[in-house]
Amino acid sequence: MPDSWISTAAHLDAFVRELYPICRSITGDGLRQTLRAIQGRIPLELREVPSGTKVLDWAVPLEWNIRDAFVANERGERLIDFQRHNLHVVNYSEPIRKRMTLAELRPHLHCLPAQPDRIPYRTSYYERSWGFCLTANALAALPDGEYDVCIDSSLTQGALSYGELLLPGALPDEILISAHTCHPSLSDDNLSGIAVAVALAQELSQRPARRHSFRFLFAPGTIGAITWLAQNCETASRIRHGLTLTCLGDSQPFTYKRTVSGQASIDRAAARVLARTGAAHQAIDFFPYGYDERQYNSPGFRLPVGSLMRGRHGQFPEYHTSGDNPDFTSGDRMFESLGVLRAIVDELEADVRYRNLEPYGEPQLGSRGLYRALGGTSIPNLQFAMLWVLNLSDGEHGLLDIAERAKLDLATIREAASLLESHGLLARA
Amino acid sequence: MPDSWISTAAHLDAFVRELYPICRSITGDGLRQTLRAIQGRIPLELREVPSGTKVLDWAVPLEWNIRDAFVANERGERLIDFQRHNLHVVNYSEPIRKRMTLAELRPHLHCLPAQPDRIPYRTSYYERSWGFCLTANALAALPDGEYDVCIDSSLTQGALSYGELLLPGALPDEILISAHTCHPSLSDDNLSGIAVAVALAQELSQRPARRHSFRFLFAPGTIGAITWLAQNCETASRIRHGLTLTCLGDSQPFTYKRTVSGQASIDRAAARVLARTGAAHQAIDFFPYGYDERQYNSPGFRLPVGSLMRGRHGQFPEYHTSGDNPDFTSGDRMFESLGVLRAIVDELEADVRYRNLEPYGEPQLGSRGLYRALGGTSIPNLQFAMLWVLNLSDGEHGLLDIAERAKLDLATIREAASLLESHGLLARA
Amino acid sequence: MPDSWISTAAHLDAFVRELYPICRSITGDGLRQTLRAIQGRIPLELREVPSGTKVLDWAVPLEWNIRDAFVANERGERLIDFQRHNLHVVNYSEPIRKRMTLAELRPHLHCLPAQPDRIPYRTSYYERSWGFCLTANALAALPDGEYDVCIDSSLTQGALSYGELLLPGALPDEILISAHTCHPSLSDDNLSGIAVAVALAQELSQRPARRHSFRFLFAPGTIGAITWLAQNCETASRIRHGLTLTCLGDSQPFTYKRTVSGQASIDRAAARVLARTGAAHQAIDFFPYGYDERQYNSPGFRLPVGSLMRGRHGQFPEYHTSGDNPDFTSGDRMFESLGVLRAIVDELEADVRYRNLEPYGEPQLGSRGLYRALGGTSIPNLQFAMLWVLNLSDGEHGLLDIAERAKLDLATIREAASLLESHGLLARA
Repeated sequence: MPDSWISTAAHLDAFVRELYPICRSITGDGLRQTLRAIQGRIPLELREVPSGTKVLDWAVPLEWNIRDAFVANERGERLIDFQRHNLHVVNYSEPIRKRMTLAELRPHLHCLPAQPDRIPYRTSYYERSWGFCLTANALAALPDGEYDVCIDSSLTQGALSYGELLLPGALPDEILISAHTCHPSLSDDNLSGIAVAVALAQELSQRPARRHSFRFLFAPGTIGAITWLAQNCETASRIRHGLTLTCLGDSQPFTYKRTVSGQASIDRAAARVLARTGAAHQAIDFFPYGYDERQYNSPGFRLPVGSLMRGRHGQFPEYHTSGDNPDFTSGDRMFESLGVLRAIVDELEADVRYRNLEPYGEPQLGSRGLYRALGGTSIPNLQFAMLWVLNLSDGEHGLLDIAERAKLDLATIREAASLLESHGLLARA
Repeated sequence: MPDSWISTAAHLDAFVRELYPICRSITGDGLRQTLRAIQGRIPLELREVPSGTKVLDWAVPLEWNIRDAFVANERGERLIDFQRHNLHVVNYSEPIRKRMTLAELRPHLHCLPAQPDRIPYRTSYYERSWGFCLTANALAALPDGEYDVCIDSSLTQGALSYGELLLPGALPDEILISAHTCHPSLSDDNLSGIAVAVALAQELSQRPARRHSFRFLFAPGTIGAITWLAQNCETASRIRHGLTLTCLGDSQPFTYKRTVSGQASIDRAAARVLARTGAAHQAIDFFPYGYDERQYNSPGFRLPVGSLMRGRHGQFPEYHTSGDNPDFTSGDRMFESLGVLRAIVDELEADVRYRNLEPYGEPQLGSRGLYRALGGTSIPNLQFAMLWVLNLSDGEHGLLDIAERAKLDLATIREAASLLESHGLLARA
Repeated sequence: MPDSWISTAAHLDAFVRELYPICRSITGDGLRQTLRAIQGRIPLELREVPSGTKVLDWAVPLEWNIRDAFVANERGERLIDFQRHNLHVVNYSEPIRKRMTLAELRPHLHCLPAQPDRIPYRTSYYERSWGFCLTANALAALPDGEYDVCIDSSLTQGALSYGELLLPGALPDEILISAHTCHPSLSDDNLSGIAVAVALAQELSQRPARRHSFRFLFAPGTIGAITWLAQNCETASRIRHGLTLTCLGDSQPFTYKRTVSGQASIDRAAARVLARTGAAHQAIDFFPYGYDERQYNSPGFRLPVGSLMRGRHGQFPEYHTSGDNPDFTSGDRMFESLGVLRAIVDELEADVRYRNLEPYGEPQLGSRGLYRALGGTSIPNLQFAMLWVLNLSDGEHGLLDIAERAKLDLATIREAASLLESHGLLARA
């Protein structure tokens, strides 16, 4: 096991554990603190969009902050305590301070009967409300009586925060990597996505040359993507490929969720990479639910943004419960996810489209030292690759197409293209 | 069994039995009498097109009427008698009155050796000729001798009759339902098609709202469709979908015959409906034989008209014989056929194409009361349907497309679209 | 077995045996002598293109001729002798006359360790070099010592020779039949292709009417096709279909190699013909290696030229060895190949595209005597074929399409089209 592997995997895990305790939401200091932690690793630019700003069909909501919350019995013992787990409070709860009976309190308590040891994750972003989440066992054990209920939160004119990083490339065309950043203490969803995105950004920033420009977006789900789209329409028009990242730290096989068209370059690149892993994996068609691919793929934008994940939205028991904690995810799995993500990005980077500058017949490779001198019965792969690249570089096919059709690996096709380009036989289309 | 079921099935059967004895042809009083019987049930408009009128590449033929026909032996006994069964006369026979030997008569006699108890149905529309049809057993029993042969028919300047009914809808776009009306005493082919078409017209006329306009056409096969097309070119250009109806009263599984393209909306609607029946059925590709779908699908018109049937043209023993009588068909089977036909029509009615009026990102459904307030892990079908309708209402997809892609039932998709439309988020494209 | 069969098969074999001893190359007298032998059978026009002429990205090379070559021991015994087999010399070897040790000679000797009894075929067209080929057994038996090495060849300003024959047809549109003519004593590759092409040309020249014009090209591989393309750009633009012929005399099943698009008419015609043979065969996708289909399918030309062969390039042991001699090929196999080739050509000849001149509804066939008078239950194939031809003659479909869709044989479809054309119902599109 190479050191870098141990090191990267360990860093991924450590970053998840560092961010885990923070109580994030779609606005507020927990979100801001998370973006600053990312900024400690990559040069993220932070944006603050004031509450009330009109964004597409929505408006930026009030900023939510929370200091404390509990349900205490008459003896002052906290039976439900935000300080012990921030999932105990329904995210975005309005403030309350009141004594009430269990019967009055009960409609505000949420549990998971099927998983009696886990606290569920609940939100109430767009309707003023408050509530607590607790395990079904704890709920069952609550005696009748009077309770002091306190949520020391605030909903005030403030801002929605997000962070973005642009790594410029040779082309203005962008690849978008987007991770939602609003979930509180949930590890797989989506600290794993954040950590893997950060690690990729670190790697790409070290590359001597990038063909595409890369945009990393860390923003709260739905309203964050909508805010970004509203304020960056022109930038959005330069996005050629994209991925949302989520649930990349669990031990399930990879799932790739396609774009609306299902035939975008990102769809084909993901299919190729996952096929190469040799491991179980699946590709599923787009559906307008899940994460921010919903917004990017909306009919007004139709950005070809797929989604890379391991465990699927709502389809594993730990999803949106206290079971989704740093012991559920692992650095090794995130390291694997980073490898798949990097490979997909590399396919897109490699998918150059060339134009054959000598398209009439085959150019004479021999006189350029590109072809074996002695005619025999077979042909080395690199020479065959050159013939394929020449034949299909008609402005319609990129190197990925050519590699698929030639059934040669992309590295050989790229080497062939590079040789031909350096001999003046190809130009970038 | 609901009363309406018994009632409709019984009415279908009764109508077939009422029409059965009439000697129809491609022109003449039998045809006219049939159209008037239909007019007794739906407000059909009758048309008369004079003999000799040029219609496309054809001309309306002379009008044929027949009063009596027989072959009698020297004792005056009618051995073949039109009064007993109108199939006994080759349809459109010219008049004859002559005494002749069996040998002279023999070339004018037609039977079915493979079905010795059945009278075949034969026509001679476009070549002047005469003849009789009888069972093979009866033919074998004819003694040598002299016979009095009489066909008391007339071929005169008259008219070709057809009937049509337009039920206007919100759209000028029409759905054509066409049934050929020229066959004499044959029950499945096509009194069943006529009866089912009439029943559908009755139902649709009661609907408070129709999206499409519906045109019902009752006309003789081939020359009737050609005459209608010749005289209604502009109307034909408004036909968006169509079906010819035939053989809908027998007990065979359903067959749907596709349009020339095979990919018309009617083709997809029929496939979906038949799949939903759960019963055996088949869809077959278009071929230029059968009924008037041949004319509608001709290259100059290319109207997307499919064909709905049970028993297939020429593929069951009773076809075009005296075996195709009201005991071969049943009201229950016609009632089933009416259900399938109605379901196909309903799919087309439901296949509205909308335009998302907030296409940039997802509109905020929560603030409009269209989305559950408390965020959890799953989403009700109706809300999911709204997201699908919003995502795919880009002017390219109708509700049928959306239902197929979403794998949700059309009713849910329609309800979602209706909710979104009432909230100003969708407009009809 | 009909006489013509014996006769044609025998002639094919005899022609291969006549041409076999000649030492061909990409230029020179062996090539010229071969073209003149072809000229003895069909009125080929010979072209000479001077050395140094710029052709596309290439230049016509120097003309190579050879009189003698050997490796002799000190006693003057020829241990390797061009006079015994012209494969003994690396084709296009520069002249040499030198005494050298076996160690010095060894790098210039080529054998086939896996087939120790066969002489390999090697060339060095585009790099000045020389060498000998011999069996591995002979190489192993060469004693140490000094050798007299002689290649009495010349590389001089001369010309590249090729021959072409145009058989004009009703259309200016051409079908190209191309056979490479540069290989020395190799029978299957490509004397078989040459012989079959000549036989087809003989047959077609006898036909009273050809729809397409046919162009036969006999030219050296690669540089010959490139030279022809360079000098015949305008002609190339008239090529609608084409085939390269190679390895048509061995006993393997047929292989058809598709054009780049894989969907050209020639691809479909070949698929249909091979399916009809009932025998094992395969169709493979285009790849830019093999024979001159590489040049014709290059992106600047994209001529739809497939390739017909039996044994595949490089995939049988005799390929490019002395094992590929007239005993390896047979007249019977070439006769079979001629039959497949003729059938493919006939499909293309038959694939006329018509326009229905009465496209609105079906024209009245009965009044034109094209339809049975008495209506019954079935329809003869020829009448059905007429209905299909009328329905699909919309300018988009040729007779091949119609035959495929109607599942009727092409002969019936052609007869139907011919009848309809003669009655003024169809015109060539």
